[in-house]
Amino acid sequence: MKPIICLTIGDFNGIGPEVALKAAVHHEVRRICTPLLVGPLNVFDHVRKSLRIKASLAKAAFPLVNASGLPVHDVGDGIWADVEYGKITKAAGRSAGVAIEQAVALCQRREAHAMVTAPVSKEALNMAGFTFPGQTEMIALLSRSQRFAMVLLSDKLRVGLVTTHLPIREVPASMTKQRIIEKADVLYKSLQTQFGIRAPRLAVLGLNPHAGEHGLLGEEERTQIAPAVEELQGKGFDVRGPFPADGFFAAGTHKTFDAVLAMYHDQGLIPLKLMAFERGVNFSAGLQVIRTSPDHGTAFDIAGKGKANAQSMIEATKLAARFARLVLARKTPTEEGPTL
Amino acid sequence: MKPIICLTIGDFNGIGPEVALKAAVHHEVRRICTPLLVGPLNVFDHVRKSLRIKASLAKAAFPLVNASGLPVHDVGDGIWADVEYGKITKAAGRSAGVAIEQAVALCQRREAHAMVTAPVSKEALNMAGFTFPGQTEMIALLSRSQRFAMVLLSDKLRVGLVTTHLPIREVPASMTKQRIIEKADVLYKSLQTQFGIRAPRLAVLGLNPHAGEHGLLGEEERTQIAPAVEELQGKGFDVRGPFPADGFFAAGTHKTFDAVLAMYHDQGLIPLKLMAFERGVNFSAGLQVIRTSPDHGTAFDIAGKGKANAQSMIEATKLAARFARLVLARKTPTEEGPTL
Repeated sequence: MKPIICLTIGDFNGIGPEVALKAAVHHEVRRICTPLLVGPLNVFDHVRKSLRIKASLAKAAFPLVNASGLPVHDVGDGIWADVEYGKITKAAGRSAGVAIEQAVALCQRREAHAMVTAPVSKEALNMAGFTFPGQTEMIALLSRSQRFAMVLLSDKLRVGLVTTHLPIREVPASMTKQRIIEKADVLYKSLQTQFGIRAPRLAVLGLNPHAGEHGLLGEEERTQIAPAVEELQGKGFDVRGPFPADGFFAAGTHKTFDAVLAMYHDQGLIPLKLMAFERGVNFSAGLQVIRTSPDHGTAFDIAGKGKANAQSMIEATKLAARFARLVLARKTPTEEGPTL
Repeated sequence: MKPIICLTIGDFNGIGPEVALKAAVHHEVRRICTPLLVGPLNVFDHVRKSLRIKASLAKAAFPLVNASGLPVHDVGDGIWADVEYGKITKAAGRSAGVAIEQAVALCQRREAHAMVTAPVSKEALNMAGFTFPGQTEMIALLSRSQRFAMVLLSDKLRVGLVTTHLPIREVPASMTKQRIIEKADVLYKSLQTQFGIRAPRLAVLGLNPHAGEHGLLGEEERTQIAPAVEELQGKGFDVRGPFPADGFFAAGTHKTFDAVLAMYHDQGLIPLKLMAFERGVNFSAGLQVIRTSPDHGTAFDIAGKGKANAQSMIEATKLAARFARLVLARKTPTEEGPTL
C-alpha cells in the first residue's frame, strides 16, 4: 500500500497551490505515494487550468482507495476562492489555516500518513485568527506534540534549529541549556528512528562570534551551550561543540557529523540554502504527525505566473513518503513512529 | 617606488609568524611591494628556520631603501621570544600588541604605506593589557580614526559589517539607524575611492528571520534598517533592502550589488567563508591607515607544524599593496586616501 500524503495549499495568493499541484503530478511522487491535495478545490482547479496541467481533480472520498484522478480534500466549498495574487488577505490566510487543521486531522484519523505544507504568509494567517509563530507550532498544538525540532535537510547537510522564527533580540535568552538538550534529543532520536543512523554524531554551533571566544564575545557558550553538550555527553550522546559558526561549514566540518544543531534561524538557513538551493527540505522532527515542507516562502512576487520551482516541494513530498513508508512497514506506527 | 607593507607577527603561539613569513617571501607579494615584518626578530628567525625558508632576515633601518634580505622591524629584542605553541600567554599578547602599535606608527610616519595584521588572540592581548574588542578598534584608536567599517572581501563578494565582535545579545540594540548609515557611508566611499566604483550599488540585509516579516518576527527592520535605507537613498546612495539574509546569497542576489551590508559577524562571515574559503580577506575601511588582514584565526591547533595555509595572508598583502599604490600614485594621500 502506497502512503497517502497530504499536500496543503499554503497561501493561495502566493505560489502555494502551484508548487503543491506540480509536486502532486510529478512522476516520482506518484510512483511512491498517493498525493492528496488539501485546500479549496475550485482554487486548485483554477491554478491547474492556468498551468495547463491535464490531471482531473476530484473530491476525495475516504477511505481513499482507487481514487480516480487527483484527489482533493476540499476545505473551501467555493467561498474562499477569491484569489488576489501577491496580496496578503484574510481569505487566503483562512484557507491556508483550515487546510493545515484538516491535514493534521486526516493524519490523526490515519486517513492519510503524512503531510507536506506549502508556504504560508504568517500575516495572512494572523488576519484569519491563526496566531502562531509558524506552521510547525500550529501543527504541534493541533497534534498535541510537546517536543519537536525544526530540521533542515539537503543531500549534504542536516541542520536542527534550537530557535526558529524568533526575533534575534529574543534568541540569547531562549537558547537555554534545557532547550538545547531537548532539541538535540529530538534531533538525535529522529536520526535514529527515521534516518536509520544507529549512533548519530551531532555537532553543536556557538551563538556568538568565534563561539564567544572563551567568554570575551558572549557568555552563552559557557553558561548554556557547553553545559548542555556536557550533559548530553554524560547521557551517552555523541555530541561535540560549541563550534564557531563562521568557518564551520566552509571548512567542511559538518561532513564529519550526521547533523548540526544551530542556535537560530539564519545560522542554519544561510549555509543550508547556499549548499542546496531549491532542493532543501524542512522537517519537523518529533511531532506526532509526519510533516515536511519546502525551504522557500510564498514568493508573492511570482505568484500566478507559472514560474515557481517546485523542486523543494517535490523533495519534501518524497521525504514525507519515505518516513510514512517506514511507519507503514512497522505496522505499529504509534510505538515506533516519530514520537519520542 | 614599491609600497612598503607592514606584516605584523600576530600571536606567535599561533600561526601568525608562519603566515606572515610565508606571505613576505611569496613571489607575487615581493613583485608588487616591499614586505616589512613587524615583531620580535628572533621569533621570526626561529620560525623561518623551522620552515626552512632561505631568506635572510635583517633588522630594518629607516628610510627603508635597498633593504638586503627580508627586513624586520624588531619590536622584541629577545625578551618576548618564549614561544609556547598552542598556549595563550601574556608574552605572546604583549608582542602582538606592540607589533600593532609599531605598524600603525610606521604608517603614520610614512615609513610604511599599509599594514597587514596576522591573527591575534584577544585573550592574550587582554592579558598583556591591550583591552580592545578587536585589532580594528585598536588600530582605529591608535590612528585616531573615528569612523570605520569591517569589510570582508573575496573575488565573489564584498560584505561590510554593521557590528563585528559583539555578543549576539548586544547586536539588536547596537545596529541603530545612525550606525547603519555610518557603516554604509564608509563602505560606499571605500568602494568609490579604493575599488574605483563610481556609483556603487549596496544591499542591506535584515537582522531577523525573514527580515522581520513585516514586524511579526522582529522590529529592527522597521524601526532602524528600513529608515536607514530610506535616508541613504534620500542622500543619493544606490541602496536597497533590508533583504532576508537566509536566501540572499543562495539566490545569487549579491551578484547584482557591489557590496552587501550585514548586521552581524556570522551573518556576513558564514556566506563569505563558504564562497571563498582560505582566500577571503578582511579590510578595515575608513581608517586613517590602510589595514587588511586574513579571514582566519590563530589556529592554535596547528601552530608550529608548518601546515598553515598562507593564501588569505597573501591575498590580504596584495590588497594592501594595491590600495597603497593608489595612494602613492595620487601623491596626495591625505586628500584622497581612505579617509572620509
